[in-house]
Amino acid sequence: MSPNQETLAWLRLGLVAELTPSGFRKLLAALSTPEAICAADRATLARSVSDDVAAAIARGPDPERLDVALQWLEDAANQVVTFADAAYPRLLLEITDPPPLLYVKGDPGLLDRASLAVVGSRNATPQGRANAQAFSRELSEGGFTIISGLALGIDAAAHTGGLAAASSSIAVVGTGLDIVYPARNRDLAHRLAEEGALVSEFALGTPALAANFPRRNRLISGLARGCLVVEAALKSGSLITARYALEQGREVFAIPGSIHSPLSKGCHLLIKQGAKLAESSQDILEELGATVGERVTIAVDDDAHGNPVLAALGFDPVDLDTVCERSGLTPDSASAMLLTLELGGVVSRLPGGKFQRVR
Amino acid sequence: MSPNQETLAWLRLGLVAELTPSGFRKLLAALSTPEAICAADRATLARSVSDDVAAAIARGPDPERLDVALQWLEDAANQVVTFADAAYPRLLLEITDPPPLLYVKGDPGLLDRASLAVVGSRNATPQGRANAQAFSRELSEGGFTIISGLALGIDAAAHTGGLAAASSSIAVVGTGLDIVYPARNRDLAHRLAEEGALVSEFALGTPALAANFPRRNRLISGLARGCLVVEAALKSGSLITARYALEQGREVFAIPGSIHSPLSKGCHLLIKQGAKLAESSQDILEELGATVGERVTIAVDDDAHGNPVLAALGFDPVDLDTVCERSGLTPDSASAMLLTLELGGVVSRLPGGKFQRVR
Repeated sequence: MSPNQETLAWLRLGLVAELTPSGFRKLLAALSTPEAICAADRATLARSVSDDVAAAIARGPDPERLDVALQWLEDAANQVVTFADAAYPRLLLEITDPPPLLYVKGDPGLLDRASLAVVGSRNATPQGRANAQAFSRELSEGGFTIISGLALGIDAAAHTGGLAAASSSIAVVGTGLDIVYPARNRDLAHRLAEEGALVSEFALGTPALAANFPRRNRLISGLARGCLVVEAALKSGSLITARYALEQGREVFAIPGSIHSPLSKGCHLLIKQGAKLAESSQDILEELGATVGERVTIAVDDDAHGNPVLAALGFDPVDLDTVCERSGLTPDSASAMLLTLELGGVVSRLPGGKFQRVR
Repeated sequence: MSPNQETLAWLRLGLVAELTPSGFRKLLAALSTPEAICAADRATLARSVSDDVAAAIARGPDPERLDVALQWLEDAANQVVTFADAAYPRLLLEITDPPPLLYVKGDPGLLDRASLAVVGSRNATPQGRANAQAFSRELSEGGFTIISGLALGIDAAAHTGGLAAASSSIAVVGTGLDIVYPARNRDLAHRLAEEGALVSEFALGTPALAANFPRRNRLISGLARGCLVVEAALKSGSLITARYALEQGREVFAIPGSIHSPLSKGCHLLIKQGAKLAESSQDILEELGATVGERVTIAVDDDAHGNPVLAALGFDPVDLDTVCERSGLTPDSASAMLLTLELGGVVSRLPGGKFQRVR
């Protein structure tokens, strides 16, 4: 399937390595659509982003990489989900730095379902892996899609458990979606593509870079309603994910273990800091308002209760500062949410930088 | 040493089985001294307590039991500490139902020192006993006298740890102090009498009665500034002690463990209800505002990668079949390796054919 002009514009901008999500959002706020950004001259772009970034956008992406992306999109399993799409996960809009576009392989409908992040050590104990798989299967049965990072150890066990029941599993990866990392999880990645989904904010061809993994972790927690840490050493990536979850206002759960096991120390630290001790999947389901055997559904609505920006807007024209002040959101998050609402026809942008709810 | 008239009056009243601590306190409030209570007629007594109790007091205690008590007091190690004594522990006066007199064998000066209750299951795991002893030794070193209940398992290990360092240990027992229960702790009871203390509110000759043990538990928590639960099943005496501790405004600590260990479930329940998770004695000392001069740390050697049996074991109790399944070893090789690890003190053999890594 050949992409339309709008998708092509999102893809082109996504392939400009110099353009950060935050710069991308600033340009969208200034110029409204990706097509307009692609058509803008360097001077116009440089009013929202630095001159170097403006130059990179004006230059356009490496044509070979764009070809790779267009070819990748010809596979019906692959798609790009952007701020402009209804499929863009609403929970992600609440985080500080939501990516304007997501590469998705598999079922994009899973992205906006009730979900739980299940994370932990790559060097997990056999018991830790068994716990991750059992909790994830039960939580998937209970209506929660299991989100993890496709790493060895706890992540792989969590995906396997999630795939074994009704609500399936999503892997959020730190590479381009045309690369499977680690290679040992190739079979699991194929199952996820067929029965669940794989998601990345990184352009196709992006290799496994250490710096991208902590960044990826904010999406694992950001997509989910809560985060369960199964086994984690002190100073581990899982604790970074848990910290993101706390910052994002998600519930954090941790499984305790022997005080002599180095892989329980991270979990114990989290419990000391206020994470909920989880002995069973039931503990988590109860905390999140469900019980085992009962499927969870999130009411998806545009009403003011569900959306902090709508609640802050009211029906009178207000500027961005006021929205931020009323909602407590950062300018970036508020802009991103306003943009989605605008694209969805719920909010209008007025001259003078004001916004108004129109329905 | 023959007791004075006042002590004799306390003793006499303490031997009236029908007189509860609460009735005793009412009489003291009305008549001021135990001598006055002993001298009062039945009608006067009946203004504070029921007629039956008044009759029992007027009748006086069994002369044989009084003789036993007087003879017991001739041993310099033994004493009675009453509301009227400076040695009566101040923290105990804060609880709902303080006993007017305590029988004490050993050093009564210990009763009013900073102390911590350390309690747990009689059927403790080897790791649980090792934890109880190590925490108690370090807490005793850090200035806290260790209070427990002289039971088998965690209690015995806690006393042993407390006795091993400067602040010693106190056993609060549920029988008369002329009876050692359980008999298997006779040597420990003798050490406590010589280097620490044993305390009871029950008259000499009181046998081990099930009803007296929960009652005794309120003194264990009441004497202490905090209560550490090391290992406890759901519905156990240790949870009763922890509940008393909470009611009495004491800090409660619990050591976490495997979610599959029945003896960790009580601790996990407490943590869910707000008890502090304790990974080390330092956690407790810090919370109670003390620091230890020299901190003992348990070295955890990370050789699980080199030993297939250790890698297969993790820190949870598992049986031989599971070790074989996880490690790919034959039962013969796995058994041989387990035996070596057991002899080296790295693995414990548990009842029911299970094994557990202990360090």
